[in-house]
Amino acid sequence: MDAITVIRAKRDRTELTDQQIDWVVDAYTRGEVADYQMAALNMAILLNGMNRREIARWTAAMIASGERMDFSSLSRPTADKHSTGGVGDKITLPLAPLVAACGAAVPQLSGRGLGHTGGTLDKLESIPGWRAALSNEEMLAVLDDVGAVICAAGEGLAPADRKLYALRDVTGTVEAIPLIASSIMSKKIAEGTGALVLDVKVGSGAFMKTLDDARELATTMVGLGRDHGVNTVALLTDMSTPLGLTAGNALEVRESVEVLAGGGPSDVVELTLALAREMLAGAGLPDADPAKALADGSAMDAWRRMIRAQGGDPDAPLPTSREQHVVTAPSSGVLTRLDAYGVGVAAWRLGAGRARKEDPVQAAAGVELHAKPGDTVTAGAPLMTLHTDTPERFAYALEALEGTYDVAPAGTEFTAPPVVLERIG
Amino acid sequence: MDAITVIRAKRDRTELTDQQIDWVVDAYTRGEVADYQMAALNMAILLNGMNRREIARWTAAMIASGERMDFSSLSRPTADKHSTGGVGDKITLPLAPLVAACGAAVPQLSGRGLGHTGGTLDKLESIPGWRAALSNEEMLAVLDDVGAVICAAGEGLAPADRKLYALRDVTGTVEAIPLIASSIMSKKIAEGTGALVLDVKVGSGAFMKTLDDARELATTMVGLGRDHGVNTVALLTDMSTPLGLTAGNALEVRESVEVLAGGGPSDVVELTLALAREMLAGAGLPDADPAKALADGSAMDAWRRMIRAQGGDPDAPLPTSREQHVVTAPSSGVLTRLDAYGVGVAAWRLGAGRARKEDPVQAAAGVELHAKPGDTVTAGAPLMTLHTDTPERFAYALEALEGTYDVAPAGTEFTAPPVVLERIG
Repeated sequence: MDAITVIRAKRDRTELTDQQIDWVVDAYTRGEVADYQMAALNMAILLNGMNRREIARWTAAMIASGERMDFSSLSRPTADKHSTGGVGDKITLPLAPLVAACGAAVPQLSGRGLGHTGGTLDKLESIPGWRAALSNEEMLAVLDDVGAVICAAGEGLAPADRKLYALRDVTGTVEAIPLIASSIMSKKIAEGTGALVLDVKVGSGAFMKTLDDARELATTMVGLGRDHGVNTVALLTDMSTPLGLTAGNALEVRESVEVLAGGGPSDVVELTLALAREMLAGAGLPDADPAKALADGSAMDAWRRMIRAQGGDPDAPLPTSREQHVVTAPSSGVLTRLDAYGVGVAAWRLGAGRARKEDPVQAAAGVELHAKPGDTVTAGAPLMTLHTDTPERFAYALEALEGTYDVAPAGTEFTAPPVVLERIG
Repeated sequence: MDAITVIRAKRDRTELTDQQIDWVVDAYTRGEVADYQMAALNMAILLNGMNRREIARWTAAMIASGERMDFSSLSRPTADKHSTGGVGDKITLPLAPLVAACGAAVPQLSGRGLGHTGGTLDKLESIPGWRAALSNEEMLAVLDDVGAVICAAGEGLAPADRKLYALRDVTGTVEAIPLIASSIMSKKIAEGTGALVLDVKVGSGAFMKTLDDARELATTMVGLGRDHGVNTVALLTDMSTPLGLTAGNALEVRESVEVLAGGGPSDVVELTLALAREMLAGAGLPDADPAKALADGSAMDAWRRMIRAQGGDPDAPLPTSREQHVVTAPSSGVLTRLDAYGVGVAAWRLGAGRARKEDPVQAAAGVELHAKPGDTVTAGAPLMTLHTDTPERFAYALEALEGTYDVAPAGTEFTAPPVVLERIG
């Protein structure tokens, strides 16, 4: 077996054999297949596709590249969620403790942000003292005690994916459905959750720009999960506009705590509850009532215990930005569009995200919205506030916001798209 | 400018801008764009193509990556030939001294073989004492004195192509018309020849398997040459069966010397004369008579001076193989097919070629044919002789020859394809 033969096969639209897939994933993990060879293969996969069988085998090969976790010692059923990434998508923060409060265990292995979408670990790290890195034993202990843990995936989990993901990121090969599906599902299957809910984002702020693409990705992932015995469903959810009113690390933690306190923006609450219900049903707890757990404080209690278990102080004040810049509404009327991608890029440029893996992020940077599509705005009144510690970034962020919102005359009819567009499972 | 933006553009079928092309070729040569990024871009180019403007700019950027040679000090007009590579394609050997004997100067910068096609330098190195590496000054001196020089291209000529070619070779991205055309033409244009004849091979033993692909490649290269002031034409020539009766290094030198002595296989003589006439016409010497120069010994004289000028002894015996294996005709009748690719792979496996750049080649290894398509063969009589110094290679070479020839009953009508299929220019 050699890399060139495998590359040529996919280049020439030939179906890869099981042996070719097993070999190339393993040889790449071991370093026998070079980065430049895998980059060429990734581009051929992106442009020529893979069928169901190839994707399933590729995923299995990535799982086999590392260790598998085992939660069978826990007394509760496990349920996890994965989002394909969006702007203002802080849902994991309220969701994990909420589901834990309802009786399931949530082993949430998360990542950091890259590009215009934020990362869950970056957000939580804005809480003084909180740490993302746990050993497998520490993770199990928190999970057993609190019922929810959000931490970085260990080095041993799907190392093939770790290497491949870093390569795809710098070779323009992120946006391939077979590679996205196998990347997400290899980690979730190796993690060993019993139930999994996929939040597949659709719209300008998501990787999947169209409902068709999102549906294809969701269907592929649901099939992969079920083939490996994970009870998997997917919700296709709107990402044409940011979720909630904040995009940025500490800003999103603050909004998540509002939700846990029984308040918060309605779209964030709605999506958190929809995902919680799916997770609980998948874990065999269909009668649990997550709305009650938000209202009675039990979700907030789980949050506080979860943050403390990882060294964080849930009562410490969150960092605030050194500089703010207010963007005002250009005219009075109805806000009919507020583009997720533009807001995501602005937050990123303000310092909430990173351009390279090794860059630090600013805890307090980001965008705070004062109106969402459908809201009435007044000329000259604040539309959004930009936050950063480095004010020289304002101009660059404002550039990203050019043309990203529309205000129509007062009285214009406007119906926002539903939060959940479709359910697949 | 960054590599990911350029890769994404080509991936998404966007035309690359002049600035993007100039930047990516230069940045790759300098090492700022990584091999894995260029590999992804190459695969996107292979699958999504480039238009005329993009190919022209890419070629210009590769030329600009290094030095350009200048033959204006020579008293004769310059003419060069490039073959896209085939099996038994020793034409450069008799052609360069022949065209020199007719009054043009032939600055033939050649390469080594890789894969199933042989390399001109490997062939000449089977002549005792002959050396391929000349400084630019030595090259000019031989050219001025003899009128023909065959040597390795210097490191300074199109270094972007040198790096790109090595990468394409190990990433399954050799077979892309834009990349083949720009690779060949950047070197030939930087070399500074006044006239250029392209021998574009078509058939099983060539990179281009179909006449349509060969025509597209030839048309692209002729356009590139003319845009850069090089008087360029192309001949599409048959490579369904090997050229002449030999494939291998010393074997091909011997056959070339036969042609220079006024003999040799008719297809080799015909193609040598056709290419010589094109080169001489391109160099402004349409009345030169290459057939006469073969007959009167002046081409042979130029050959002997050319070999001597590079340290070779034209009178030294050529190496012969330690072991031979004769393949006999399975039945009596007419040989109707003898596949170029099978013979090329067999010669390569016998030791005439190399699997990796750093491998040595065997001077005496190769395949000697005793019949060509159209010839009558007798059951049990020799069809070909395999030569090698390492007899354990016979079995592997014989495997490559399985199913590569057909013998039809005696009296079967058979018409061989013409040597020159089409002229473009």
